[in-house]
Amino acid sequence: MLNLSMHSVQFSIEIVATFAFALSGLIAGIRKKMDVVGLCIVSGVSAFGGGTLRDILLDRRPFFWVSHSVWLWGLIATCILAMIFMRERHISITEKAIQIPDALGLGLFAALGTQIPLDLGMPAIVAALMGMMTAVFGGVLRDICCNEIPKAFNDHQPYAVLAFLGSWLLIGLSELNLPGWLVLFLSASITTLLRGLAIQFKWQLPSAKIT
Amino acid sequence: MLNLSMHSVQFSIEIVATFAFALSGLIAGIRKKMDVVGLCIVSGVSAFGGGTLRDILLDRRPFFWVSHSVWLWGLIATCILAMIFMRERHISITEKAIQIPDALGLGLFAALGTQIPLDLGMPAIVAALMGMMTAVFGGVLRDICCNEIPKAFNDHQPYAVLAFLGSWLLIGLSELNLPGWLVLFLSASITTLLRGLAIQFKWQLPSAKIT
Amino acid sequence: MLNLSMHSVQFSIEIVATFAFALSGLIAGIRKKMDVVGLCIVSGVSAFGGGTLRDILLDRRPFFWVSHSVWLWGLIATCILAMIFMRERHISITEKAIQIPDALGLGLFAALGTQIPLDLGMPAIVAALMGMMTAVFGGVLRDICCNEIPKAFNDHQPYAVLAFLGSWLLIGLSELNLPGWLVLFLSASITTLLRGLAIQFKWQLPSAKIT
Repeated sequence: MLNLSMHSVQFSIEIVATFAFALSGLIAGIRKKMDVVGLCIVSGVSAFGGGTLRDILLDRRPFFWVSHSVWLWGLIATCILAMIFMRERHISITEKAIQIPDALGLGLFAALGTQIPLDLGMPAIVAALMGMMTAVFGGVLRDICCNEIPKAFNDHQPYAVLAFLGSWLLIGLSELNLPGWLVLFLSASITTLLRGLAIQFKWQLPSAKIT
Repeated sequence: MLNLSMHSVQFSIEIVATFAFALSGLIAGIRKKMDVVGLCIVSGVSAFGGGTLRDILLDRRPFFWVSHSVWLWGLIATCILAMIFMRERHISITEKAIQIPDALGLGLFAALGTQIPLDLGMPAIVAALMGMMTAVFGGVLRDICCNEIPKAFNDHQPYAVLAFLGSWLLIGLSELNLPGWLVLFLSASITTLLRGLAIQFKWQLPSAKIT
Repeated sequence: MLNLSMHSVQFSIEIVATFAFALSGLIAGIRKKMDVVGLCIVSGVSAFGGGTLRDILLDRRPFFWVSHSVWLWGLIATCILAMIFMRERHISITEKAIQIPDALGLGLFAALGTQIPLDLGMPAIVAALMGMMTAVFGGVLRDICCNEIPKAFNDHQPYAVLAFLGSWLLIGLSELNLPGWLVLFLSASITTLLRGLAIQFKWQLPSAKIT
């Protein structure tokens, strides 16, 4: 497993992260009682929003969803199946159900979104920022489509800052002599874990007290 | 008429679709009692938003409004004239008045927004998605500028799905041995017609029932 | 001073305008009692939003914040210092405090955002539009992040229109035989001055009267 090519590792991470955010979008859409088209849109922007923003900023083409368009079919099929399934049953979905795939996607996209600009020779701070934006933007679009204030902006629990920390972790680990897949795996799982702890223990960020 | 060049057909469609969305934006702005600057902005983003997003995603330059900048003057002149006209009269504008140009622009942009990536050799699903985004994004920006939830997201009547269907119709018709202008014309007019029927007969999309 | 290179003049203006918008975003974030991460995000999008949109539309790379990434560190340091400072004291911040840096950034970005496409040989109307978008977009993103309707859309006081006028002023002054820095300086300061007067004397734009 140590001789995995970086390309296939990055590809696998992009798939899993995309799927996790698609799922978070799907659940958010179901909670808002969207129709099947709305579900596809909200899952789609959650899944592909972050990576597409990253690729526009880096001027990379083709986009992931253009070169691997089969995943678009998968997304549409998943949304239709989910809709049929939900119409049959009356399942109550808690807000927590969104947070699990969201945390997973956050960690994975932060790691991958930092690795790519780093490979292109960009400065560390730019790579970390790109990582954070990749991780956060899908969720921001999801919340806008659901007509809610984006979690990344108004949630006093750490969210964007954890993606930013995860990006720096990847940059730090890249300095060590570790294999690439391990660096990606470690930084992604630590970010996801921290997000989980932040939710569980209700960590709060300091905010300005003004009168 | 059968030997029309594809380029001039595409150009004509871009003009008519742009004009239709500009009109829908203008009407929406007037209904919101915007000032003349707001009117120009909302008409402008409605008219050029979809095509600009499509061109950014496809990395096509120059944009339509850069290479044919004379149309920007037309837009500004139309908005100023509309403002003068509206200040003279007290005309009540119904929401339906927005829906007619909106349906027209939807059909035309869906067809054109699918044709262009298809010509660039992109997969059918990507072309259909680009068509849908081109058709929908101008209206989304219009609704955001008017501080309303975008019709494309919360309207349970078919809107984005019709643009998507229209895109597939164009892809299907492209397989037949028809002249290019006829393919564009047929798919655009069927999409517009379907949107009209959807409004008239209040078609509803299935949505998730949760408790 | 007359033989300043245009490049260093443009660079200085980008710095000052970026700083002014970062400050307006910082103040807006503090008024909304954001946490330190929110503050960094809202200052960052205010500061770099307009220039980044301009560079995406013009397909210019690298972005300002990629090639001069040291300023990102400055931004983060400023936000953390501001947060520490605000937690120590109870200072009441008026809305007017946002408007001063906002007016400064508006003038500077309108001038610079027009100069760059003009240098690339784009038509005057396109350059003016780009100037207006550069000037306005940072503030629009700031207001969206603060969950307020963008000033540029709903404020009946002249805002975007002044950026547009400032852009035309720069285009007009470019026709005269003046040194480049003077053209930028004159158009930027007149735009800022007009915005100040508009706020002071509560200028109103005409709006549609409908019943």
